[in-house]
Amino acid sequence: MPSNAQVRIARVPDGPLTVEHFELVEVPLPVPADGEALCRTLALTIGAGQRAGLQGSASYAGAPRAGIVMGGTGVAVVEVSKSAELAPGDLVVGPTGWQTHSVHAAAALRKVPTGADPAMHLGVLGTNGLTAYFGLFDLGRPRSGDTVVVSAAAGSVGHLVGQMAKRAGCRVVGVAGSASKCALLVDELGFDAAVNYKDPDFRGAFKAATPDRIDVYFDNTGGDILGAALFRMNTHGRIVCCGAVSQYDTTSPSGSPRGIPGLLVNNRIRMEGFLVFDYADRYDAARAEITGWIERGELVPRVSEYQGLASAPRAFVELLHGDTIGTTIVRT
Amino acid sequence: MPSNAQVRIARVPDGPLTVEHFELVEVPLPVPADGEALCRTLALTIGAGQRAGLQGSASYAGAPRAGIVMGGTGVAVVEVSKSAELAPGDLVVGPTGWQTHSVHAAAALRKVPTGADPAMHLGVLGTNGLTAYFGLFDLGRPRSGDTVVVSAAAGSVGHLVGQMAKRAGCRVVGVAGSASKCALLVDELGFDAAVNYKDPDFRGAFKAATPDRIDVYFDNTGGDILGAALFRMNTHGRIVCCGAVSQYDTTSPSGSPRGIPGLLVNNRIRMEGFLVFDYADRYDAARAEITGWIERGELVPRVSEYQGLASAPRAFVELLHGDTIGTTIVRT
Repeated sequence: MPSNAQVRIARVPDGPLTVEHFELVEVPLPVPADGEALCRTLALTIGAGQRAGLQGSASYAGAPRAGIVMGGTGVAVVEVSKSAELAPGDLVVGPTGWQTHSVHAAAALRKVPTGADPAMHLGVLGTNGLTAYFGLFDLGRPRSGDTVVVSAAAGSVGHLVGQMAKRAGCRVVGVAGSASKCALLVDELGFDAAVNYKDPDFRGAFKAATPDRIDVYFDNTGGDILGAALFRMNTHGRIVCCGAVSQYDTTSPSGSPRGIPGLLVNNRIRMEGFLVFDYADRYDAARAEITGWIERGELVPRVSEYQGLASAPRAFVELLHGDTIGTTIVRT
Repeated sequence: MPSNAQVRIARVPDGPLTVEHFELVEVPLPVPADGEALCRTLALTIGAGQRAGLQGSASYAGAPRAGIVMGGTGVAVVEVSKSAELAPGDLVVGPTGWQTHSVHAAAALRKVPTGADPAMHLGVLGTNGLTAYFGLFDLGRPRSGDTVVVSAAAGSVGHLVGQMAKRAGCRVVGVAGSASKCALLVDELGFDAAVNYKDPDFRGAFKAATPDRIDVYFDNTGGDILGAALFRMNTHGRIVCCGAVSQYDTTSPSGSPRGIPGLLVNNRIRMEGFLVFDYADRYDAARAEITGWIERGELVPRVSEYQGLASAPRAFVELLHGDTIGTTIVRT
């Protein structure tokens, strides 16, 4: 008889995350009530922002605690439905968490077409792609010819931001954490330049890569890279504050960048944080536009795949170590 | 025979400003060339932002040096004109600097009506009033019912921001540096509450004064008050970065506020710097609107006056000490 495999939080991390912060357990399958459906997870996505969620009150995601199933978004297939809105075989996206089976009210699930690779719905057509899209266009407002810089540029959001900005006629510079990632950005994803933030002369290389300074900085990292970008912004530049991955997996986050508010005033810089959930009423239109770009080969999403639910903790740790490219997917 | 009295920079300050950083000299009257006019200064305005200008490259105003006339905006009367655009007796606003006489090309001067007190053109209808207007409305975008907080609230810009926000239907809280200023804000200028940042329990009092948190924070100070406001912002709050007076007159500026970029992301906060000069093409329309408010008694500008050019250094020092209210004017 099938059971539900779950990855639970074994203890809340107070320093760098390891696989020991999680535990794999088996429990009986949940049973759907009226209006609910039992779903079998096909794939999960893991994002760096979930590390912030493990820091409790510091995040919008609510406080974590030992013993609960690790949260997360997945693509699942409906196995049993007690809702008129769902039928067995339907493909859905929802808050499955890190488990092979879960039960949800129909309203918590979003039906998606069954044609494409389910993982697409978690990456470029999921939160990652929408985050890139709304952050870049609504907050960054790039104009053709602008210099757009993105940090964590080989990451789930960053690699899409760069390609979207390139498509909009911008000069695009990525910041990433290894020479091989930088090479990939330039050689395969069309970035104009890429800079390795672990380079001992990062600031010099960063300056050389932005000869016309920066009009839009899409910040996924915070910390030192944000600090460097602040000092390279053009007048009326826009800083899109999307995340602060450099600050999540550490016991000693770096302070805020220097020069605030003085640099903002003198250079008339706008710095704005956002969460993609605020744009939910525009998701469908954005997905339609993004789908068109993919179909025309103007946007090439990348995925790092892991096989099996048990690999999820390792995938998360490797993601935080910067070992993954694009959207991180665990096929369950 | 009349001569030109000038206040010059005796030495560039590298710590708190004193009157000894200036010297009074007498030189012969300048002579206008073709297209120029000789002007006699009637009144000067002094703003805290000029202290940033004395820090050299840190400011948009260019590098200062010993021996030059202290810069500044004044109202003057044309005494001799070699320009077809100006006639003796015309009242003008221009970059007179701290001196009784100066020569300018007609294009550098703006004619103003002779009816009102000349000082009005330096305060509420000058840079101060325009800074309050564009910063509050274009960047802050207050809605009726919003809580608007302004720092340096009894200052040249702050006392106008608060009144403009109150007029727009907001709950207005001022932050100032003395109990008497706080009393003035509430008792005479219509602020709903005021908090003294020198109060040992400033953070507690600030929290109590903003029970619904903050929708718009108009920041004239930077430093600790900005830090406190950041932690009180509502979701989708706007921080208008206008100046950083707490950082100007010191050898040890405080660091940037904590929580950047994390707080900006989680609370979707926009933080934006501006300089009023970018809005020059809208000055006339703004002045017309502000004039209407004054005429209807909806905006009550305040002025701190000093008599005689020689009092300008003392006025500047007292302004930086927080001893002045509203626009600081030196009548020459």
